[in-house]
Amino acid sequence: MAGSLGIDEKNKSRSGFINLNSIGLFLDYYELTMAKADLDHNNLNTITENYYVRKIPQGAYLVSAGLEQVIHFIENFKIAKEDIEWLSSTSGKDFDEKFCKYLQDFKFDGDVYAAPEGTVVFPNEPIINITGRSLDIQLFETYILNVMNYQTLIATKASRVVRSAKGKDVIDFGARRAHGRDAAILGARAAFISGVIGTSLVMAGKIWGIPYIGTMAHKFVQDRKSELDAFREYAESFPHNSILLIDTYDTLKGARNACVIGKELRENGFELKGVRLDSGNLLDLSKKVRKILDEEGLTQTKIFASSDLDEFVIEKLLKENAPIDGFGVGTRLITGANYNSITHEGNVSALNGIYKIVERIEGDAAIPKMKMTDDISKATLPGRKQVYRCSESGRFIEDMITIWDEKPDSKHDWHPLLIPIIENGKTISNFPSLREIKEYAADQIHMLPDGVKKNNGAQEYPVKLSNQVNELIDNILHK
Amino acid sequence: MAGSLGIDEKNKSRSGFINLNSIGLFLDYYELTMAKADLDHNNLNTITENYYVRKIPQGAYLVSAGLEQVIHFIENFKIAKEDIEWLSSTSGKDFDEKFCKYLQDFKFDGDVYAAPEGTVVFPNEPIINITGRSLDIQLFETYILNVMNYQTLIATKASRVVRSAKGKDVIDFGARRAHGRDAAILGARAAFISGVIGTSLVMAGKIWGIPYIGTMAHKFVQDRKSELDAFREYAESFPHNSILLIDTYDTLKGARNACVIGKELRENGFELKGVRLDSGNLLDLSKKVRKILDEEGLTQTKIFASSDLDEFVIEKLLKENAPIDGFGVGTRLITGANYNSITHEGNVSALNGIYKIVERIEGDAAIPKMKMTDDISKATLPGRKQVYRCSESGRFIEDMITIWDEKPDSKHDWHPLLIPIIENGKTISNFPSLREIKEYAADQIHMLPDGVKKNNGAQEYPVKLSNQVNELIDNILHK
Repeated sequence: MAGSLGIDEKNKSRSGFINLNSIGLFLDYYELTMAKADLDHNNLNTITENYYVRKIPQGAYLVSAGLEQVIHFIENFKIAKEDIEWLSSTSGKDFDEKFCKYLQDFKFDGDVYAAPEGTVVFPNEPIINITGRSLDIQLFETYILNVMNYQTLIATKASRVVRSAKGKDVIDFGARRAHGRDAAILGARAAFISGVIGTSLVMAGKIWGIPYIGTMAHKFVQDRKSELDAFREYAESFPHNSILLIDTYDTLKGARNACVIGKELRENGFELKGVRLDSGNLLDLSKKVRKILDEEGLTQTKIFASSDLDEFVIEKLLKENAPIDGFGVGTRLITGANYNSITHEGNVSALNGIYKIVERIEGDAAIPKMKMTDDISKATLPGRKQVYRCSESGRFIEDMITIWDEKPDSKHDWHPLLIPIIENGKTISNFPSLREIKEYAADQIHMLPDGVKKNNGAQEYPVKLSNQVNELIDNILHK
Repeated sequence: MAGSLGIDEKNKSRSGFINLNSIGLFLDYYELTMAKADLDHNNLNTITENYYVRKIPQGAYLVSAGLEQVIHFIENFKIAKEDIEWLSSTSGKDFDEKFCKYLQDFKFDGDVYAAPEGTVVFPNEPIINITGRSLDIQLFETYILNVMNYQTLIATKASRVVRSAKGKDVIDFGARRAHGRDAAILGARAAFISGVIGTSLVMAGKIWGIPYIGTMAHKFVQDRKSELDAFREYAESFPHNSILLIDTYDTLKGARNACVIGKELRENGFELKGVRLDSGNLLDLSKKVRKILDEEGLTQTKIFASSDLDEFVIEKLLKENAPIDGFGVGTRLITGANYNSITHEGNVSALNGIYKIVERIEGDAAIPKMKMTDDISKATLPGRKQVYRCSESGRFIEDMITIWDEKPDSKHDWHPLLIPIIENGKTISNFPSLREIKEYAADQIHMLPDGVKKNNGAQEYPVKLSNQVNELIDNILHK
């Protein structure tokens, strides 16, 4: 199915930014053709689709993120009249007037249930549960997958990095290596949810209210007669708030120059806030630099480090007692790098979340749907489902995936993960602030069993299927 | 250097989309603090910064992409008055009135030289050369790196995939696994430049004029009584243009159902356009499906394949004569996956391009700048530079990096890569259309020596340093 050439060189965009009035164009073309075929054949039944993840790329848990953008999309789903005309004229004979009118009048009137952002989730658990007309809700697929897959990937990666930093500050330095502008912005948000304290990207600060943070670049030092001149000028401009980058020429000489400035600042009633290491052997250098700073009485001056950091490197540095107070983490955080920098094993950096039909309503009957494959681990769990979680002494014990109205056994104190967000097309959830999401995510990670949280050799968290789910599967497999 | 909490929960964005009126906020905070310190100390000298890449993540060449978005940014660099006020109020004591006025009045009046999009480039070659006031041009760093690193990564990956497909169609199916919405949109553009024929993402079709293409999802089949019903309904809606997905239940049965529909279509004067395989052993299945289609006389019906494809898998399939006519490539294309699916070796999926000062003007003198490190391969080449390339019999022979006004020897026919784009703040280049860029990129790849284009064990392309560049380095190292 090929749309004709949509070329319009004169009116083409140069920025590539999304026009909110046509946000509904963010879909894969097959979603439109399937909707057209549904409309042609009066397939207006109600179905439920699930967003879920089959496999975790790194470690044994995921931190869910991206729901607020998904709900914004569903609330604002729209294709501008001129863009419907564009579709109609560029898609060959694919679309008729009836379908264009359907697009123009589109209004979602179904239900969305979802795990709140910051919830820890596991493979095969529904994270978003959307119920509505079959032809309508397929139009959400690409946007949901794009936004949820990326933000969940980054929130999960950030959680690993923050955990490994054991209470030291972690700052997002990733904008320059993010996959496009949106990745820098959404990635900063997802990382903040999982405990990163701020971002280098000012625009993410503006959009999300995240603290923005910066030090200095090598360029500032190279652009002056000497490193000492550069440090002095910077400290004069920001006496209250200077972090000096000391590795442009020679890190230890840089540390001594920083001490000169630190003492000058002190004479004027200020303290040098910090120095940053950006290359070399961070363990060795941080120890030597700490010694130099301490010998000069700059015991308050902190040491920040950057340079290809990730959870593995940070864990190793802190195990070996590197006196580093904060970490700027860039490329490997913002790309959700599926790469172990100690073992050098690597894979694709993406979260393969999917959006699948699980139930179709026909008259009074709910027909469970299950994608069969030769590999049962790749099958979709059938039916509209809920996830229950039980805790003991402030720790998660196990999860159970149930059919929507099914209650798990009463032996444990089960808590449902999916909560109502949209009902009959109306948003009924008050969205938490980003700070509330962050606190909730911290609680979630805290409650996760320690064995599940290891960087290497993490234990699998127990997720069980309820009796009714197992019965549905049996019925379908043996039909 | 930490900006205070910029939190403003009431006015926060929910979409995360960029506001064009404040596109200038897409920068790392240190670019602002350094500019403030420059302004405070009257450091208004002219410098040159280079965007270039030190190391190619996969293979032995890069296809440059992203320049049009960079130029759009420089032309439209702006921070809205209200956002300057926001900066001023959230950055603690960092900014004063003088600096806010500087931001408000910002106007770039320098020069940009660059290799046109689609140019094949190599490590250490300047790809963009920006000359202007030191404090101004550092504000472009993050945006340039973000846009160029990602699009060049994807144009390069796409070139590898397209080359491996040996003339068969390659289609971008990546939107759902791209790192955010922008990655899907910019990635579709970069992939199109390198020979991908279309994208599944309708919005990329609208924004860039790229053909959009789709088939059907498993959901369409599962949402009906039978696969045959689903195929028939789809073909009724799109008799001229149906590609049927045949692996929902059993691929070979699916192929036979497709034949039933193909013959029904033919009775009505249409041909079944194609079938799609999305799982299983693609080599084995494509051969069996081709046989089934041919036996039923559907020799015109094409076979498309998707499912974790990349250049390695496609190369192997075609070597083994898989009768596949087109490939839908998703995750591994749009994330620039640095992963060899045959050897299972993987690394971080990012292009580590950098933006570094190379020259500073002081009075009449041009002072070359070179970032020293213990590792000479990580040093920045000093001076404002040009790249010359020579060809013989329609093939590139070698490149030479020279000082800006230096001419390489006259023995060869050298051609400069960096062309003027902006002079004195005014754009003087007519931007080529995306189709022209695509044709140019195809020529570039064609002219690259075969040994450089292998998926495994590619030869290094010869890039030499001119006499003057070598002299500058010697002078700096021995000073």
